[in-house]
Amino acid sequence: MTPEPQALPGLLTPEASLHRLADDLAARFTGVFARETVDRYVFESYTALARTARVGAHLPVLTARFATERLTALAQTEGAIASDVCEVLFVCVHNAGRSQMAAGLLQHHGGSRVHVRSAGSQPAATVEDPVVAAMAEIGIDLTAEFPKPLTDDVVRAADVVVTMGCGDACPVYPGKRYLDWQVRDPAGLTVGEVRAIREDLDRRVRSLLAELHTAGSPA
Amino acid sequence: MTPEPQALPGLLTPEASLHRLADDLAARFTGVFARETVDRYVFESYTALARTARVGAHLPVLTARFATERLTALAQTEGAIASDVCEVLFVCVHNAGRSQMAAGLLQHHGGSRVHVRSAGSQPAATVEDPVVAAMAEIGIDLTAEFPKPLTDDVVRAADVVVTMGCGDACPVYPGKRYLDWQVRDPAGLTVGEVRAIREDLDRRVRSLLAELHTAGSPA
Repeated sequence: MTPEPQALPGLLTPEASLHRLADDLAARFTGVFARETVDRYVFESYTALARTARVGAHLPVLTARFATERLTALAQTEGAIASDVCEVLFVCVHNAGRSQMAAGLLQHHGGSRVHVRSAGSQPAATVEDPVVAAMAEIGIDLTAEFPKPLTDDVVRAADVVVTMGCGDACPVYPGKRYLDWQVRDPAGLTVGEVRAIREDLDRRVRSLLAELHTAGSPA
Repeated sequence: MTPEPQALPGLLTPEASLHRLADDLAARFTGVFARETVDRYVFESYTALARTARVGAHLPVLTARFATERLTALAQTEGAIASDVCEVLFVCVHNAGRSQMAAGLLQHHGGSRVHVRSAGSQPAATVEDPVVAAMAEIGIDLTAEFPKPLTDDVVRAADVVVTMGCGDACPVYPGKRYLDWQVRDPAGLTVGEVRAIREDLDRRVRSLLAELHTAGSPA
């Protein structure tokens, strides 16, 4: 990409890579979404992550994942992609601690029986290091995860929404189950303190999974 | 709307009012945007404001304004709505102080010669009270303004983007002029201190306006 003469050095020049991503996703979602929708998802997903992410170099990769996950969620909601497992969304404030841990635990214990997403009302720049460390101790790898703002599409795709500390930041739609968990925020805590939160979340997640299993997956 | 049995009391049940808003906007933008795009803008705008806004009661009204502004910006970019004045976007961190003041000042001095927008990389819940007070002293009313997250659509619609303290949160596209202003953040300051920032911004805004006037508006 040729740098714009008027562009400031610290700013980002994403256009060419985002158009390539939009081409790829438009092909993948042919017959599901209008090209206009795919374009908007790609560019808005980029701008949403750029607002809070600190490492600009990773943005194109994270944008590709975020836009793909959002379009997939929307396609599920509209019935264009089948989902035969329970879809669970965890929401906290920064998507850097509690919601990432809960998502990792549920995916770990639930395996192919669940599909898990997470988001934050005010996403942080990165997942907290002690959180990544505490989860690594039990064999759950969060190194590739990143904080994402809560979006409408992932709420719509969810069967169960679990909020933790984010107030009423999450829209309520009919036909979903909403739970609010009172869990300590790991922000700024040591790995030792985060372990206790991990154990608290582990009990809650196992209990939720047992309930979902008893209730049966949505077909 | 019938409350969902599983919904928590503090959470929001927006669906019916958002569908009405989408109907209105789909009619207004007939031939410009697919219905799918209008629906997504309405619901994502709602969720984006709900993430950070504190007063849930105002959310439907703010969502209507935010979604309308965003769709208008996108329609201008695509040439479906003519813009014969200079489009200026101010971006700061919280969209609660600097960018709101600069936008108010430029619109005040520029009148019909400019169209002004503002946004934040991490929007606050409301515009700062001392900021509203300091602007009221010079006859500029910010009481109806609200902090909004930076979105791709308003960047694309801008001829000039002025960033203040938000790092590289703003995407850079060709053909725009980018400026970065070093202006003190009014967060937590008294009205007296905010007045000095207002005067600083006033000088910068008048100078920008004189330049834009000399350069001529984009046709």
